[in-house]
Amino acid sequence: MVVKIPDSKSEEAKIMLEEIKEGKILSRRGLLVGAGKLAVGAAGIAVVSSGGLTLLSKAEAAKKNASELPWPYKKLNSKEIKKVAEIAHDNWFKGFCTYAVLSGIVDVLREKVGGPYTSFPTEAFIFAHGGTAGWGATCGTLIGSGIAASLASGHKTGEQIVNEVMVFYSDTALPIYMPDHPKADIKAKSISHTPVCHISVGKWMKEEGLEEGKGPEGVGFLSPQQMERCGRLSADVAMKTVEFLNAWADGKFKPVHTAPVMANHIPSQNNCTACHGESIPKPGPFGTGMSLIGGH
Amino acid sequence: MVVKIPDSKSEEAKIMLEEIKEGKILSRRGLLVGAGKLAVGAAGIAVVSSGGLTLLSKAEAAKKNASELPWPYKKLNSKEIKKVAEIAHDNWFKGFCTYAVLSGIVDVLREKVGGPYTSFPTEAFIFAHGGTAGWGATCGTLIGSGIAASLASGHKTGEQIVNEVMVFYSDTALPIYMPDHPKADIKAKSISHTPVCHISVGKWMKEEGLEEGKGPEGVGFLSPQQMERCGRLSADVAMKTVEFLNAWADGKFKPVHTAPVMANHIPSQNNCTACHGESIPKPGPFGTGMSLIGGH
Repeated sequence: MVVKIPDSKSEEAKIMLEEIKEGKILSRRGLLVGAGKLAVGAAGIAVVSSGGLTLLSKAEAAKKNASELPWPYKKLNSKEIKKVAEIAHDNWFKGFCTYAVLSGIVDVLREKVGGPYTSFPTEAFIFAHGGTAGWGATCGTLIGSGIAASLASGHKTGEQIVNEVMVFYSDTALPIYMPDHPKADIKAKSISHTPVCHISVGKWMKEEGLEEGKGPEGVGFLSPQQMERCGRLSADVAMKTVEFLNAWADGKFKPVHTAPVMANHIPSQNNCTACHGESIPKPGPFGTGMSLIGGH
Repeated sequence: MVVKIPDSKSEEAKIMLEEIKEGKILSRRGLLVGAGKLAVGAAGIAVVSSGGLTLLSKAEAAKKNASELPWPYKKLNSKEIKKVAEIAHDNWFKGFCTYAVLSGIVDVLREKVGGPYTSFPTEAFIFAHGGTAGWGATCGTLIGSGIAASLASGHKTGEQIVNEVMVFYSDTALPIYMPDHPKADIKAKSISHTPVCHISVGKWMKEEGLEEGKGPEGVGFLSPQQMERCGRLSADVAMKTVEFLNAWADGKFKPVHTAPVMANHIPSQNNCTACHGESIPKPGPFGTGMSLIGGH
C-alpha cells in the first residue's frame, strides 16, 4: 500500500504548514475525511504518534484525540492487579508516592491497552509527593489515584472514585499489602482519619516507634521503616483504585460517600471537631453562586 | 514524495502487529533507523499523532517521545501571560482551581508550542479542586502549577518551581489579579500562611464577610464572592508559575527556599507552632533510609 505525502515545496505542503502555524490542528476524523489519501489500509491505519508506532482499527482511529477523556480501559485481572501493587511499592523508591501509584496503574495499562497511556508523562506528577513538594498536605498517593481514575473513567467518575479511595485511606488501618521484596521489616498499621500526609505519616511513625519499643520518637522520616510503609501504602491505594475502576467497567461502581465539600459546605474533612473542638465556625450561605458555573 | 506502508496481509505487517501486541513500542529514533522508509522528506516528517497532523523537523522528530520530560517551552510575553491569567480566571467557573491554573498555562502553550501540549488531557486533573475532591487539603491551584511547571521544565525543576510558588501562595495577601470580566465585586485580600485549601479559603471568607460589614460568617463557600476570589487566585498562581518558567528558560531561575520536608525533617509547613503550639513532636532520626532511593 502506498501513501502520498506532499512534496515539501508543493502548494499543498505550503497550505499544510500554514495550517499548522495557525494552530488549526485537524481532528483525526477530519484528517481521514479531508486528507483521505493518508495511510488507510485494510487492517487499519498506521499511525506514528509521540509514543511510537501504533496500528489502529478504523473505528479507533476515528475516535476523539488523547486530550479527551476517558481513555480506553480494560479490566485488570488478579495477576495484573498484583503487578500494579508490586510496581507501586517498588517505584516509591524511585519517585515517591504520587509517582508510585500512578506509574503502577499506568505501566500495566500501557501493556494491556497501549495507546494514550504509552505517551503519558508519569514523571510530571512526582512533585506531588509528601503532601505536595514536601509541604505535608494531600497525601501524594491520592493525587496519583485521582489522575489514574480520571484518565480511565473520565473526570466525573474519576473524582467519585478518588473520593471513595480517600474514605478508604482515612478510615482503614494501613498499610495492608505485603510486597514480594520488602526493603524493611515493619510492624505498625495506623488509621489516619485524614488525607493529610503530615498527620497520616506522623501517626504511623509514632505507632511504629512504640511497636519497636523505641518510644514515640523512635522512627524518623526517610527511615527505612517509614519509606517501606509509604511504599506499601502506595500499593494499597493503587489496588483500591483499580478495584473501583474494575467495578465501573462492569457498570457496578456506585459512589457511596458524599464529597465533604457538599456535606460540610466547605472543602474539609468530616471530623471537624478533631481540629476545631466544639467551636466549629459557621460560614455564610452555601452554594448561591453555583449558577455561575458553566461547562463542566 | 511517497511512503510505503506494508500491505496488511504481508509478512512485514504481521511482524509489525506482533510487535505491537507484545508491547514492543519503537522509539521515534528507532522508527527512523529501523523503518527508514517512513515519510522522511526534505521539509521534515509528516506525523499523524493523537493530537492531529503535525510536521516535525528532522531534529525534533528524532527526539524522545511525549512520555519524557521536559516538553518544549518557549518564554511567554506579557500579552501571553495576560491571556494565561484570563483563561485561568474564566476557567475556574468551568472546572475549578486545578483545571483553571493548568488550562490557563497549557492552552497558551498549545498555541505557542503545540506538540505534546495539544494532546494533554487537562480535564484529568479537575478532581484535585477544593484540596483534592473537596477534602480541603492541598489548594488545587498548586497541583495545577506543579503539573504545568513539571511538563515544561522537567520534574526536578518543576518541583523547585512549585515549592517557590507555594511560598508565594502562603506568604502573600491574595488575590491580586483584577480580571477583565469579574463575576463578583470583592474587597478582601488575605495571607493564608498555609497551602491548605480549607484554611486558606476559610480565612478569606471570614475577612470578606468583615469587609462587607456582614460579620465573620457573612460570606459562604460557593458564594459569588468566594468563587471570584478563587478564580483570581488561580490567575495569580498561574502567572507566578509562568514567571518562574520564564526565568528558568533564561537560565535565571534559582530556587531560594528549602523544601519544608528537608528543613523540618517531615513533610510539613514551616509554621509548626501555628498548630502544635510549643510542644512540637520530635520524630526519630531523619533520612537514614535515603540510600534505598534509586532512579530519580
